[in-house]
Amino acid sequence: MNLVLAGVYRGSMAHIDLLNEMPGILGLLRFRPQTARPLMELAEVLLRGDSTLTRGERELIAAQVSKLNSCEFCFNAHGTQAALQLDGGWETVDAVIADGDGGPLATRLQALLRIAVAVQAGGRNVTKRLVDTAKAAGATDTEIHDVVLIAAAFCMYNRYVDGLATWAPPERDQYTEAGHRVFTHGYLG
Amino acid sequence: MNLVLAGVYRGSMAHIDLLNEMPGILGLLRFRPQTARPLMELAEVLLRGDSTLTRGERELIAAQVSKLNSCEFCFNAHGTQAALQLDGGWETVDAVIADGDGGPLATRLQALLRIAVAVQAGGRNVTKRLVDTAKAAGATDTEIHDVVLIAAAFCMYNRYVDGLATWAPPERDQYTEAGHRVFTHGYLG
Repeated sequence: MNLVLAGVYRGSMAHIDLLNEMPGILGLLRFRPQTARPLMELAEVLLRGDSTLTRGERELIAAQVSKLNSCEFCFNAHGTQAALQLDGGWETVDAVIADGDGGPLATRLQALLRIAVAVQAGGRNVTKRLVDTAKAAGATDTEIHDVVLIAAAFCMYNRYVDGLATWAPPERDQYTEAGHRVFTHGYLG
Repeated sequence: MNLVLAGVYRGSMAHIDLLNEMPGILGLLRFRPQTARPLMELAEVLLRGDSTLTRGERELIAAQVSKLNSCEFCFNAHGTQAALQLDGGWETVDAVIADGDGGPLATRLQALLRIAVAVQAGGRNVTKRLVDTAKAAGATDTEIHDVVLIAAAFCMYNRYVDGLATWAPPERDQYTEAGHRVFTHGYLG
């Protein structure tokens, strides 16, 4: 279902008049193009740029942090991206989130996800032990850097989306069409 | 004092080898130029771009959020920017932070600062009442948008800086020289 048409589900008004009907961060990006550009450039390089982490793995980390921040729009949007790119689709995403500790993931990704979970609670929660465990499982310094920044960035995106009380389509399948567009064209497309 | 020379004060190693001795976010930006660019473009437009909020007011909001996130580097760096640009300098910054509720600020800025404090705790903490109070005090929709995004962005920058355990010069006056450079040349300079 098209996200704009899904606006019939909209239950509440945003805190400010966005001058458009787009849900989640989409309405905010249209409202303020000056900040939209760096925000989407950051998402593009973090989630889709060159990396030894797959795009699916990075989207899974974004979805996990969004879930912990109770950001429905970001969780569904990035869960959709992860599901499109990971073996097992939404089943894998749901298993990881439900487990809360990496669930069925390989050891290296599980250790990186634990770092992301720590970042969500606060930067100082990332202990040397968490980092050493990730390194012992094969994670590189750049991977650790990127996971910390992805988790930190979603603590921004999630607060931006919910701090202005944007609306979120309630059904997971309402994110599929826009998800395919992002999958094909990226966050700057 | 030059921040690089201040490295003699460095008490602990970052979680990853940054291949440089710069403190706080500076070492991270140099380590990963691909993410540095959008991160600094965002800071530049949010804190120094066109706005009906003064640069000093926006830096004060950044400093308040950084204080609540216990990020020493960001608090001192953005507190310095606020102090350079607000009447009363550091005395004003300290009074606002100590009060925790806007202290000596004008009603409009006090109401916007309360929104920023709510964002720091979580996006859903921004209530209609907080927003209505800011609007009644004269805040525009764009100002409310920008304050929410500044507060959200510092929930990212703070976690990035502390999640990778970068070092922070401990004395306030160690931030003055770099602060004057940012004041003159901006975050992209």
